[in-house]
This record gives sequence, structure tokens and C-alpha cells, in this order.
Amino acid sequence: MKVRAAVLEQFARPLVVQELDLADPAPGEVLIRLVACGVCHTDMYTASGVDPSGYAPTVLGHEGAGVVESVGEGVGSVAQGDHVVTLFSPQCRECIHCLSPRTNLCLAIREQQNLGFLPDGSTRLSRDGEPIRHFMGTSVFAEHAVIPEIALAKVSPEAPLDRACLFACGLSTGLGAAMFTAQVKDGATCVVFGAGMVGLGAVAGCRLQGAERIICVDRSQARLELARGQGASDCWPADGHVVERVLSETAGFGADYTFEATGLVSVMGEAVESARMGWGLCTVCGVAGRGETLDVVPRLLITGRRVCGSSFGGVKGRDQVPELVERYLQGDIDVNPFISHRMPLEDINRAFELMEAQDGIRSVLELGA
Amino acid sequence: MKVRAAVLEQFARPLVVQELDLADPAPGEVLIRLVACGVCHTDMYTASGVDPSGYAPTVLGHEGAGVVESVGEGVGSVAQGDHVVTLFSPQCRECIHCLSPRTNLCLAIREQQNLGFLPDGSTRLSRDGEPIRHFMGTSVFAEHAVIPEIALAKVSPEAPLDRACLFACGLSTGLGAAMFTAQVKDGATCVVFGAGMVGLGAVAGCRLQGAERIICVDRSQARLELARGQGASDCWPADGHVVERVLSETAGFGADYTFEATGLVSVMGEAVESARMGWGLCTVCGVAGRGETLDVVPRLLITGRRVCGSSFGGVKGRDQVPELVERYLQGDIDVNPFISHRMPLEDINRAFELMEAQDGIRSVLELGA
Repeated sequence: MKVRAAVLEQFARPLVVQELDLADPAPGEVLIRLVACGVCHTDMYTASGVDPSGYAPTVLGHEGAGVVESVGEGVGSVAQGDHVVTLFSPQCRECIHCLSPRTNLCLAIREQQNLGFLPDGSTRLSRDGEPIRHFMGTSVFAEHAVIPEIALAKVSPEAPLDRACLFACGLSTGLGAAMFTAQVKDGATCVVFGAGMVGLGAVAGCRLQGAERIICVDRSQARLELARGQGASDCWPADGHVVERVLSETAGFGADYTFEATGLVSVMGEAVESARMGWGLCTVCGVAGRGETLDVVPRLLITGRRVCGSSFGGVKGRDQVPELVERYLQGDIDVNPFISHRMPLEDINRAFELMEAQDGIRSVLELGA
Repeated sequence: MKVRAAVLEQFARPLVVQELDLADPAPGEVLIRLVACGVCHTDMYTASGVDPSGYAPTVLGHEGAGVVESVGEGVGSVAQGDHVVTLFSPQCRECIHCLSPRTNLCLAIREQQNLGFLPDGSTRLSRDGEPIRHFMGTSVFAEHAVIPEIALAKVSPEAPLDRACLFACGLSTGLGAAMFTAQVKDGATCVVFGAGMVGLGAVAGCRLQGAERIICVDRSQARLELARGQGASDCWPADGHVVERVLSETAGFGADYTFEATGLVSVMGEAVESARMGWGLCTVCGVAGRGETLDVVPRLLITGRRVCGSSFGGVKGRDQVPELVERYLQGDIDVNPFISHRMPLEDINRAFELMEAQDGIRSVLELGA
């Protein structure tokens, strides 16, 4: 079939919306009609050419939601008409990681996905007979996509897909960092560095876990107001004095849980230093620049601070994205404030410009009827 | 009373064994007749003058074991004749840290101890009427010491004190890192970097936890042989290729648990890189040089590795040192191979020379009859 899609033709150049060929789903794959797709930093990062593992041409986009149109041979977990959220972090339910409660990093299709292929090592996308590679196993800046069954979370049809799409990446990443990776305890003091999509999700996650005090730190007053709406009890400017202030307001101890959601290694350092002596846990969510390191004074570790990272919030996608969407439907998570712009696929480059300008939290592409 | 003790008079100079005055125990304090004391790197580190928090004159020594001679007012947990192990890391059983299962860092007397004083802000040691400060709340390079009740673990009288003393620091630090901080799981693959007292203790701790594979890494073949005796299944030279080798022997994943017991930040880095994708935990036990940092590539965290530190092995001293000594008495821990030299208090400087030359694991000072 023919699909309109936004193609990264060359790094650091605008994406080009055009018509491509999309082949039928192979066994274990599913054809999705996309309805909505969030535009995430990772898309822009790859488009910039800075990501050393990036490639072009490819169809970007990985924060998608849509409706199943048809399924390939052997697909049993979703059927035509189901509402689904795409999972760049799949869940095969069979590999040693999926069988362990300790990690969500499914191993099933990792290698082929990283190379831009579907699990069988080929692509469904092509142009004039030349294969076009997929991106993060999803490629949802498009009207349709063929996606492995294990990379789709079936969600309640009651959830509007233009909001459910945020659970495909940013929102789940933040929520999960607090709920699944750090497993914030009731009554805890938390500090969230960064009030973008991930940081705001982490604020909401801390609230859902019953944290008593949730401090959110950002440069932008507007974003801090959004953080307050998600449950932050304290909103502080990122003024370079955050560590001192956390220590002085916690009797010198630091916070039980800290979250870094900026991708800046200097902020990761602040998050480590703000974590509590004895048991403070710093969870790194942001993706740092190439070659950058988080430099930790070992004394901070010896005196009880711990450092971990979170990928897709530790969320096991097929099991837990539907649960998170359910909590949204129950009113536990306020998704609307995250959507700052809506636009058609054709305006994808404007979405990147808005992101570069830090204008708003999320642009959502409206892809279908 | 008069006591012979080894005094650090000036940094980077030999200790001077001499007679000092020791006052009676104040309320909450205990007079101990020392029987044996291990010589630990921290003693030498302070003696060198490199430790910025060090001071002189002071009586060094913190790995002591002895017999209670008398108790001050209000002391109820030990009595004359009890066998005790000294605790530089005390356990008051009342502070918020002691009441939490998450940390062993008792807060009760921390500040005064760090300044060289007993809990009331004064010293029991003096010379010609001039106070001499205590060291790590213990000062056990001496025939007698006055020590806070909360800094003494009462151990079985069946345990020879010249072996029990190792539980006062190095051995418990290593055992506890595996047993209490990392809580190594049955069947795990572990890598221990460094086969000094702490590393060898960590090897033994991994074995007691039921680890399936215990890789120990050191420069010294002799130390690696001791590691094998403690339960290491694999003994590897520290040849700069350890990370690659760990990855290649674990299908590219890394080890479930890694332990750093060298104090070298480069080795801490290897320990992080050797930890398993998904859930590998790196436990830092060594004390790094001043101003040095452990530089971590954030991607290692995002893909599931975690980093923590361990002080005194996470051991809550009064509760758990007696339990560890019990396991020694039951034959679970082979302490004898750790004791490489025995000598009288007068030879303390030779013990430092042996340590500097990396000759043996532990020198034990034989202090009393």
C-alpha cells in the first residue's frame, strides 16, 4: 500500500513528507493505522545526526497510537480494530529479561531493531523498490506502519488516541521512573530535575506513589507551573543552588529519591549530590551527549547514596502501558496539559522548531481521521 | 591509669609507642583491655597526612578486640569480662538510621567522633595533662581504651580475640558488602576487584550467599590463591582486559554483582562496566583518593546497571558482628589465612611497612596476655 510518511533524508535537514510503499505485515507483525503521534527529543536527536547509531533515510517517530487494520500470520494478542500504543521498547514475554521482574529491556528483537530492520532482518518500507529502514521498530511519523506484535500495547478503546500516544514514550518514561524503577515509597521526599515530558511524568509518578514532598526544578516558570499541576509541592528555579537548598531543607540529609530528566551530566551530578545520605536513590532518565560522563565522588556512594538509570521508566510495555492508560482513564493522571501543540504530519518540521525553542511540552501529530 | 599506646605525633612520621594517661569511663562508656588489633589501611592513610580530616597527636587503631574491664554509669549491654569487638561504626539503636533497615550509618556520635572526641566532647586520653584525641572512636593501638558502649559488639567468648578483631573492620566490610549491601542472590555471577582484606571478605560473602560463579581479580598471584581458598571459582590477573573478559564469558551481558575493593577510581570504573545490563549492581567498597571521581557513562545506567557504595559492609555492628563471628565459629568463614603477621605493639611501624610493601593481608598486633 501507499502511505504518506515523514522521511529523514539527510541529517540536520528538514524531514520530507512523501509517499512510500508499505508492504503487508509478515508473520508476527501488525498493520496499524496511526491516529496520533507525539514528537519526542529522540526523534530530533536522530534527525540532527549527532546520534552515532543514527542512519538515513528512515521514517522517524516512535510515540504513536492507532488502530489495528490487519494482522500477520500467528498474531494472537491483537486483532483488527484494537486500539494500540506503539512500543519502541517491546515485550516478548519469553526472553530472560522479560521473564525477570528486574528489567524491562526485552532482548528479542534488539539487534535488528537497532539496525533499522524488522525482526526478520528486512523492511516493510520502500521507495521505488529501494528499502527504507524503520526507526526504533516503529516509524510512526506516517499514516500507517507495520510493527511487530510484541511492540504493541493494547489499550482501552475509551482512551482518546491523541492522548494515549504520550504513553508510548515520554509520559510512561517519567511515570515509570518513579513507579517502577525507583519504586518511590509512601511519605518520601523527592526531587525531580527537569520539567519536560519525562520530568513532569516523574512528578506525577511520585505523587501516585504517595510521596510527601515533591520538589521540581526547572529553568522555566511556565513548566514549573505545569509541575505544580502534576503534584509538585515545591517548584524551584534551576539557579545553581539546588543542592544546597535541598540539603538545607532536609536537615542536611538530602532527598530520599532524586530524578534527572534533562540529559545534562551536570544536572545528573546535582541529582546524585541531592540524594540522601544512607539510602538516597538517584535515577537518571535523560540521555547524555556522546562521550559525556557523570562524575561521582565515591564518598557519596560509600555514605549510602545509590545511582541507577531508567529506560522507558522500567515499564514492561504490553503489561504496564495498558495499566497506566487505565489510571489516566480513572482520573489519576492529567494528560491534557502536556499537549501544547497539535498539527498535521505535514508540519513535522515545525514541531521540531517548537521543541528546539522549548515552546511547550509536546507537539502531537494528528495523523488520521 | 597508665597505658602504652602508639601515638601519631606528626603526619608521615613513624608512630611513637609511649605511656599515656587514660581516664575512667564516663557514663555510657566502657574500659576495655585490648587483646588484639588488626592494622588497616585507614590507619596508615591517616598517618600519612593525606586524609584531609586527619589530626595529630592521636592514638590510631580501630580494628580491636578485647575484654571489658569496667563499665561507666548506665552501661547495660556489656559487663566486666565480656569479649568485645570495637566498632568505628557504632549502633545506638535509637537514631533514625539505626531504626531503618536501609542503612548502618548511625548518627548518634558521628560529629564528636569525627573530631576525635568521645560523645561528651572530651577525651579520656591525655599526656602531662594535655588531652590527646581519640581516632575513629576507638584508638586501639593501645593496651587499654575507653570506648562508648554503642561502639562495642559483644561476641562469643569462644572466638579467639586475635581473629575476632578482623571483624572490627576489614573482614566485616567485605562480608557485609556482599551479604547486606548488595544482598547477592543464590546462583549469581559475581566479580570482586581486589583481593586484600575487604575483597577476600567479599569473596567469602558471595560464597555464603550462594553465588554460583565468583571471579576475583588482583595483581598478586599469592592473593588470588587466598581468594580461591575463600571460594573464588575464577582467579584472574588484573591485566587491563577484565571488562572484556567478563563480558565475553557472560554472553556479553556482564556480572550480576561486582565489587570494588581497591580504592582506585579506574578499577571502580571497570566494576561498573563489568556489571550486567538490566540489573547488574556495582558496589564500591574502597576509599578513593581526595578529589578523585568515578566517571560513569550514563548509557551504562540507562541500560540497567546500578552503582552503590558500602561502608563497613552495611553491617549494623552490635547486632550483626556477633552473628558474623558466630558463622566463623560454625566454620563458615576461614579467618586464619588473613593473618599474615603477628607482632607486639612496639612493632606497629613494621606493620605499616609490610602494608606498604603489600606483604600479606593483615598484621595483627598482640596487645595483651
